[in-house]
Amino acid sequence: MHRTKVRVVEDALDANNTIANANRTDFDRANVKVVNFMSAPGAGKTSILERTVSALDGVRVGVLEGDVQGSMDADRLAHLDVPVTQLNTDPSFGGECHLDANMVRSALPQLPLSEIDLLVIENVGNLVCPAEFKVGEDRRVMVSSVTEGEDKPLKYPLMFRTCDLVLVNKIDLLEHLDYDLNSFLGNLDQVHPHVPRMLVSARTGEGIEAWLRWLAAVASPEPALA
Amino acid sequence: MHRTKVRVVEDALDANNTIANANRTDFDRANVKVVNFMSAPGAGKTSILERTVSALDGVRVGVLEGDVQGSMDADRLAHLDVPVTQLNTDPSFGGECHLDANMVRSALPQLPLSEIDLLVIENVGNLVCPAEFKVGEDRRVMVSSVTEGEDKPLKYPLMFRTCDLVLVNKIDLLEHLDYDLNSFLGNLDQVHPHVPRMLVSARTGEGIEAWLRWLAAVASPEPALA
Repeated sequence: MHRTKVRVVEDALDANNTIANANRTDFDRANVKVVNFMSAPGAGKTSILERTVSALDGVRVGVLEGDVQGSMDADRLAHLDVPVTQLNTDPSFGGECHLDANMVRSALPQLPLSEIDLLVIENVGNLVCPAEFKVGEDRRVMVSSVTEGEDKPLKYPLMFRTCDLVLVNKIDLLEHLDYDLNSFLGNLDQVHPHVPRMLVSARTGEGIEAWLRWLAAVASPEPALA
Repeated sequence: MHRTKVRVVEDALDANNTIANANRTDFDRANVKVVNFMSAPGAGKTSILERTVSALDGVRVGVLEGDVQGSMDADRLAHLDVPVTQLNTDPSFGGECHLDANMVRSALPQLPLSEIDLLVIENVGNLVCPAEFKVGEDRRVMVSSVTEGEDKPLKYPLMFRTCDLVLVNKIDLLEHLDYDLNSFLGNLDQVHPHVPRMLVSARTGEGIEAWLRWLAAVASPEPALA
């Protein structure tokens, strides 16, 4: 029974990877780099994007907003004058807790790929399943808010292990919390040694400059061969 | 294809409900009341339990800890001298993002049901799937941290709609946040009008007394018929 369940999960992830590769091919053909942007609910993904998407000099950004229901995050970004596409995961009872490659594929016709250089896919707020499903991204970025506690890398290891950058957000609140940043960073290194990390505050703007440079580097064309 | 997927989900939830009812029968037979305790990662479930489980006069509490991996929360509760049972959801790649009735059923033989009056099941930190899967509980309680923002009831409506009590945690941080409590409560009433809610701080203890009374009332035997 148990082995059967694991097999079904593996088959589903296999199928997902196949579709993710197809998405990747389409993104590559359009010269669009893709960032899969993930976090727990309320960690600050949308607030960070509000500071980011129209501040990237020379890089045309598009956003794909993944939500269970509604378009609140897309509405928050609407004034920023970048193309935002909404993707909802709620056809069934409570909705899906993550984006998968097929959902992103279904949104491809709505994405203005010829008008952007970088697509940021804001995933559903969740530290478990989004980590399991590739969607065709070039890079995975996760946001961990200091309000969530130091233990999260150990409790949700796959998410922290499979990301290329960790944004440690809400550092403006550090002085009001019993939060040991060094303990968090130690836990992070335990599950993903040396993964790049940046301390940021979407509220004050602290650290955002470094994040913008990181994003711009992802979006820039590969260096020509020597 | 899509309809097939919805059907598969419905069948799985049907099977889950059947097992949840069996769990419920076993809990009833043992005179144990059960609270399914849910939230996003880092909202403060374990911190609230640390203040709760050994403070309930005359009520013997047990805890079932649901985690993807590890036993960090169980370890945090270990000094409180209440029975804590660990349940991990990680047999497959990234682990399950929620407890279901069958997982709880598999833990039943380890639960000291004859020694407790109240079982608190700390679910996996996630605002989507835990709301879909009953586990045999009498009551559902969710924790929403003020650091997560006011929009969460609208973004994760099933969770807020299916709970019997909302603990609004970390209110000691309110003065340091751009968080409009009335806006949050308005959003909450929009998806679940009049659901009981309590403002608490696991850190300072504010509001915890009311929560203890609520829990004690759940655990007390039904009033005798007149």
